Amino acid sequence: MSAIESRLRELGITLPTPAVPVANYVPFRRSGNLLIIAGQLCIGPDGTIAEKHKGKLGANVSVEDAREAAKFCAVNLLAQAKAALGDLDRIGACLRLGGFIASTPDFTGHAQVMNGASDLMVGALGEAGKHARTTIGVPVLPGDVVVEVDAMFEVS
Amino acid sequence: MSAIESRLRELGITLPTPAVPVANYVPFRRSGNLLIIAGQLCIGPDGTIAEKHKGKLGANVSVEDAREAAKFCAVNLLAQAKAALGDLDRIGACLRLGGFIASTPDFTGHAQVMNGASDLMVGALGEAGKHARTTIGVPVLPGDVVVEVDAMFEVS
Amino acid sequence: MSAIESRLRELGITLPTPAVPVANYVPFRRSGNLLIIAGQLCIGPDGTIAEKHKGKLGANVSVEDAREAAKFCAVNLLAQAKAALGDLDRIGACLRLGGFIASTPDFTGHAQVMNGASDLMVGALGEAGKHARTTIGVPVLPGDVVVEVDAMFEVS
Repeated sequence: MSAIESRLRELGITLPTPAVPVANYVPFRRSGNLLIIAGQLCIGPDGTIAEKHKGKLGANVSVEDAREAAKFCAVNLLAQAKAALGDLDRIGACLRLGGFIASTPDFTGHAQVMNGASDLMVGALGEAGKHARTTIGVPVLPGDVVVEVDAMFEVS
Repeated sequence: MSAIESRLRELGITLPTPAVPVANYVPFRRSGNLLIIAGQLCIGPDGTIAEKHKGKLGANVSVEDAREAAKFCAVNLLAQAKAALGDLDRIGACLRLGGFIASTPDFTGHAQVMNGASDLMVGALGEAGKHARTTIGVPVLPGDVVVEVDAMFEVS
Repeated sequence: MSAIESRLRELGITLPTPAVPVANYVPFRRSGNLLIIAGQLCIGPDGTIAEKHKGKLGANVSVEDAREAAKFCAVNLLAQAKAALGDLDRIGACLRLGGFIASTPDFTGHAQVMNGASDLMVGALGEAGKHARTTIGVPVLPGDVVVEVDAMFEVS
């Protein structure tokens, strides 16, 4: 088992089977040392999206639940990275996370929500997990999920 | 004529003259093997944006019309790629598409709309056209267009 | 003083101390010749976000004020680039700006707002500052700021 997967296990996380895109695209593309991963939705460990992870901050979804949703997105990014690389230890750095948080126009705590993804990435990868990030509010996401996160990794 | 342009012709598509940015930026930038293309709006073959491609899903724009708008964005990305490269056959891979779909907060079929762009890219480029993608809902886009798509290509 | 900082001084701009991320991420990551900078908010020269730079276009924020906010975001991107590189003259090109403009669903002048960032980048970097860009409307941004901009640079 890779060092990173051991750390994930200590965090109580087993990587799921990565989601198959529901449309005409692929979950990741590699170019040289760059690995680009498609936007991941907050599919949980049971392979479904919980009702509490659908909707919007400022309306029906709490910050705590949305943080968990963001964490699930990050886990799914790592599951895709493993599918791409075979071994997560080939990740040199998480270069960037893009966080998309569905909210009403008066909610402003998106950074706190996105920390659910950032904390998981740093928890799993350590120094290599420290990433630049861009977090924005959106009115709605595909399938009404509350959080979507995409990523760019440096890999070997 | 390049192999890719022949395939586009079979799809009934002629690459338009690429749009000139309306502001102080450029339509593409290359760095090594990466070609980054600015967000393209759904300008049609006649050089204008149709009224049916302005507004929002969930309000005045149908999924079918928005799919066509997404396809036009993809065609415009390829027109910019040709302007950058001279020959589309120098595209090694479409690494990533970013899809921005203007919708009301209760519309959730953004993935289906974005397939209009993805299907065109895969139709034109074959295996090389299979891309990672991130699709999000937005409240409104510049000029009230219904779809905007940007891209990153690997090129030689 | 670097040539670029001299030009900034002619534009009346002194680079601020770059903002420390308020969450578990880093302001930039470098991979080879790529420098990826996290989304920068419109923090002004005094280190705070002005009330006139909070809210939304189409509601309480004017286009003129939002253009200034976009300019501040660009200045903050350069401040982060300097922190990353030591010397701004190591910037080879601004490859891409991503512009996120908080607006009501009926505002459509996002491109004009984003020019505040683009004009600063080209003013500071000259030819090297000409970038591909993607500008979208969003319902709200972290901390209720009116503009957020992220960037990718080619550096040596």
